[in-house]
Amino acid sequence: MTEQNAQDIASGWLAALGERIRAADPSSVAALFAEDGYWRDLVSLTWSIATFRGRDEISAMLAACLAGASPSSFALEEPAKTTSDGTTEAWFRFETATGLGRGHVRLRNGLCWTLLTCLVDLKGHEEKRGSRREFGVEHGAIRGRRTYADKRAAEASTLGREVQPYCLIVGGGQGGVTLGARLKMLGVPFLIVDRHPRAGDAWRERYRSLCLHDPVWNIHLPYLPFPDHWPVFTPKDRMAEWIEAYVALMELDYWSATEAVSASYDETAGEWHVVVRRDGREIALQPRHLVVATGMSGAPAVPRYAGQADFAGEQFHSSTYRSGEAYAGKRCLVIGSNNSAHDICADLWEHGADVTMVQRSSTTVVRAETIKTFFSSKLYSEEALAAGITTERADFIYASRPYAVMAEMQKAAYVEIRKHDAAFYEGLAKAGFQLDFGEDETGLSMKYIRRGSGYYIDVGASELIIDGRVKLKSGVEVSAMERGGLVLSDGRRLPADLVVYATGFDPMETWLEQLISPAVAHRVGHVWGLGSGTRRDPGPWIGEIRNMWKPTRQENLWLHGGNLHQARFFSKLLALQLKARMEGLPTPVFDPKALSRHS
Amino acid sequence: MTEQNAQDIASGWLAALGERIRAADPSSVAALFAEDGYWRDLVSLTWSIATFRGRDEISAMLAACLAGASPSSFALEEPAKTTSDGTTEAWFRFETATGLGRGHVRLRNGLCWTLLTCLVDLKGHEEKRGSRREFGVEHGAIRGRRTYADKRAAEASTLGREVQPYCLIVGGGQGGVTLGARLKMLGVPFLIVDRHPRAGDAWRERYRSLCLHDPVWNIHLPYLPFPDHWPVFTPKDRMAEWIEAYVALMELDYWSATEAVSASYDETAGEWHVVVRRDGREIALQPRHLVVATGMSGAPAVPRYAGQADFAGEQFHSSTYRSGEAYAGKRCLVIGSNNSAHDICADLWEHGADVTMVQRSSTTVVRAETIKTFFSSKLYSEEALAAGITTERADFIYASRPYAVMAEMQKAAYVEIRKHDAAFYEGLAKAGFQLDFGEDETGLSMKYIRRGSGYYIDVGASELIIDGRVKLKSGVEVSAMERGGLVLSDGRRLPADLVVYATGFDPMETWLEQLISPAVAHRVGHVWGLGSGTRRDPGPWIGEIRNMWKPTRQENLWLHGGNLHQARFFSKLLALQLKARMEGLPTPVFDPKALSRHS
Repeated sequence: MTEQNAQDIASGWLAALGERIRAADPSSVAALFAEDGYWRDLVSLTWSIATFRGRDEISAMLAACLAGASPSSFALEEPAKTTSDGTTEAWFRFETATGLGRGHVRLRNGLCWTLLTCLVDLKGHEEKRGSRREFGVEHGAIRGRRTYADKRAAEASTLGREVQPYCLIVGGGQGGVTLGARLKMLGVPFLIVDRHPRAGDAWRERYRSLCLHDPVWNIHLPYLPFPDHWPVFTPKDRMAEWIEAYVALMELDYWSATEAVSASYDETAGEWHVVVRRDGREIALQPRHLVVATGMSGAPAVPRYAGQADFAGEQFHSSTYRSGEAYAGKRCLVIGSNNSAHDICADLWEHGADVTMVQRSSTTVVRAETIKTFFSSKLYSEEALAAGITTERADFIYASRPYAVMAEMQKAAYVEIRKHDAAFYEGLAKAGFQLDFGEDETGLSMKYIRRGSGYYIDVGASELIIDGRVKLKSGVEVSAMERGGLVLSDGRRLPADLVVYATGFDPMETWLEQLISPAVAHRVGHVWGLGSGTRRDPGPWIGEIRNMWKPTRQENLWLHGGNLHQARFFSKLLALQLKARMEGLPTPVFDPKALSRHS
Repeated sequence: MTEQNAQDIASGWLAALGERIRAADPSSVAALFAEDGYWRDLVSLTWSIATFRGRDEISAMLAACLAGASPSSFALEEPAKTTSDGTTEAWFRFETATGLGRGHVRLRNGLCWTLLTCLVDLKGHEEKRGSRREFGVEHGAIRGRRTYADKRAAEASTLGREVQPYCLIVGGGQGGVTLGARLKMLGVPFLIVDRHPRAGDAWRERYRSLCLHDPVWNIHLPYLPFPDHWPVFTPKDRMAEWIEAYVALMELDYWSATEAVSASYDETAGEWHVVVRRDGREIALQPRHLVVATGMSGAPAVPRYAGQADFAGEQFHSSTYRSGEAYAGKRCLVIGSNNSAHDICADLWEHGADVTMVQRSSTTVVRAETIKTFFSSKLYSEEALAAGITTERADFIYASRPYAVMAEMQKAAYVEIRKHDAAFYEGLAKAGFQLDFGEDETGLSMKYIRRGSGYYIDVGASELIIDGRVKLKSGVEVSAMERGGLVLSDGRRLPADLVVYATGFDPMETWLEQLISPAVAHRVGHVWGLGSGTRRDPGPWIGEIRNMWKPTRQENLWLHGGNLHQARFFSKLLALQLKARMEGLPTPVFDPKALSRHS
């Protein structure tokens, strides 16, 4: 198919979309979609993050949203293309009553298979960048001039005291700082509080051998990308330095060494009462909005075993593991088989320990190199950059795939991956390692999106397991502990000097319970997951990550987090939602699957 | 003229250049130039920074350099263009025996008016960026693994002790850090020492109202550009923060609070013996190369007046001025009429002081807004960016104009500027301000390049002088001081509570005298200036800034500095020269005007 054909098809479809929307006829708009077509909307029509499948769902969304959003001015932003499978793809711009949007469409046989509509700017409230940037100095002679340093000092001394932040962000890791940067650029007053002494500590304090598993092209923070000599995989201490510098250079209002003690919502005043502890003193804050950005996991989950207190050796959760330095020649047991368990086993082995992994349930393992080849290199790589796929563009391409479509793509890829790495998987199986590729064979990324656990990205530990340098006990449970070590469910005993519980974390909603109340945590419901009905991701199907980056069932409470990719992309959508509310723009939310469900 | 014509003209000329170079015939190459044509070479053929004017100089350069450099593979890198005055301009790439180069040519009537050849990479020693970046982590299981933090800690603990830097950089301001970053990218071991407690202090410690006079598009540091929300004019404290973060994020080996005490060159060993004082202890360093990057000015120059010690008020040099806060209602005299004098007068006035400027000699004044309109907006602005002129491209365009050509361009622009701001200049003249536009009417930029002083970029003080809010005594000298204030050469007395000496700095070579020896300083000769024969820039004509960023007459001694534009651009050229020497590549220097002159 020629490019002209693609262009005709895409512009024809887009024109029809615009006309039928103008005619305010939801069912005729829905008829432009395939029977099982998708419309994914990111804050542009629904003021939420929601995917609608099939003509009925799409009609219902339009009936609710069209009058308020008034989408219009749809126009292709670059030439459309037809891929080898006959799908025509196109990028477009559009407007709504309040914002500017960007969209992407995939057409098959003249009908829409997937449509993405995404808010990118609020009209009249655009980010102060490029030609909108500030001047920085007032030229002329001005009595009582306040310099940059004066203003920053004044802001710092009044914020959280005389001046309340519009938005309080609890947690100053990648989630908190990316949202802070977005809000800064939109002129929304905010304050980030974080319990660690220094920004970046959430990375700094982790085990010494940790490097990021995502390559540099996929871990950029907004506005201040890593320079082009930055290594492919970032060591954790370097990430910590970057985040610390980011806070300073982006001028984020950030209180470190500050613990959020409690929060309650005053419905009458429409504001939060939050108590934080800083420098040993409690400070009461009254932000309009509260964003919990304490990470996608809750508190460390340590299993309870009979006789645990009798164990004579050292025992601790993986989150407090730092280094294997002290354990050369020691018998070390690592309970668990996900990322941290593997990394800790490898680090202990590298330090000369005698290491055994205790695998309690099956795990998805994929080699880092394979992930690069099959997935990240297509969107986030030097080759992608050379093909014009910047990180921003890659993020939009990623967003253009509804999670249901993504699952099917992943499933197909894993058929190839299992062939590609057949010898590797055979080796793991021979060693007794319990492998899976997800209940529906959709692999690692879907496990991450559904439950945030259950996998290992292999950067070296698997070869230790395959050749037995790290010993493995699998298909067993720990039935008890005793002075000398573990007692397994098969009756065998494992003597140990050290037991590391790489047993994961409580779900994210535990933070809400602790900080706010069990009642609010219950009202909000489960956080994370799509409702896939697989293990740790109970249904019903929602199709977007639950409660993240969008209105929850608790007024003015928001959750932000995830990996760097998610922190980067969704921070903007969350910031736009907060800015719209601050400016008093109408923000009618339509997200029935997410907001009406019972959890 | 059509674009095709331009392309034919440029590619034809470039082909002829390549052929005649291959034929090794200097005079036939020189015949491709206009009688008064220029060849500016930046380290690619001459291993220096040198401009040759006319066929004789060009022939002589080629006779000396062609055999060693073997330039070849000249190829246009984008379509050539012909400007409205009939000049055809083209960008091209080329190679030499050791490096990759970039060039620019301006042709008139088929002959070359200006040619730029610039080294951009050493073959086989390219910067580790983009697809050459490091991996960052070794995947696999490795006993005795050294992490990023381990390696950085080991480097930090041995550098300057067991491990000597190949290059020692004295001065960690914008000059030191830009060169450090360049060397880092080329794998040249270096150490920066700076006397201030923290990186960025050279900016941080200046007077509170200071903002950079160059706009953001022209102050980017290499590799880590300012984000696109950075203000147009950067406040000094923000610049300080950026430089401090730059040192951390670029992983520069940087000793703050370290003073360079003495340096001497061991000709036999071919290395420097440098003593630095750090934490109260003296440390001896033996770098191969010494770079003095302590700023383009030497120590503060304070004039000596009879009776100076009798003055009852406060007196200090402008470099120690911080704020006018303490001087409300006080009688303040500022001696001098350049940038600092004006900024300090304005700051004192803004704080309610009674201010008088004592102007001893005439000054070039140009409004900041006018500089933006007439100069910087064409190369360094949002509009330039929109036209594809990135900062890197702008730097090359700037470099493509030999200083003699630049002076003529400036002269023409100042005819327009004086019309454009006629009312402003009339106001200054009426107030008694002694104005000039340079001895040859070439204005502010040429004064900067020739002598680094003698001008004010007006950001507000001139209106205070015009309307008398800041009083002015001009055309007078200070003949003496007494308890109550100044005695002027016209016999009048100026009572004062404060006298600020905004009287400039000693020339840069004073650093060499102090750090190394008067003999070496004398051998190197005058630093800065072109040899224009104007005040403070004695001839003979050299045509490049003396002794900066290129070999001096003292082996393995280099000078680096200037504004941010110069620090950014020339740091790369200096780093390439150092890298070539470290790798043992042949670097025969041809720069007769600079190296054979008597100073």
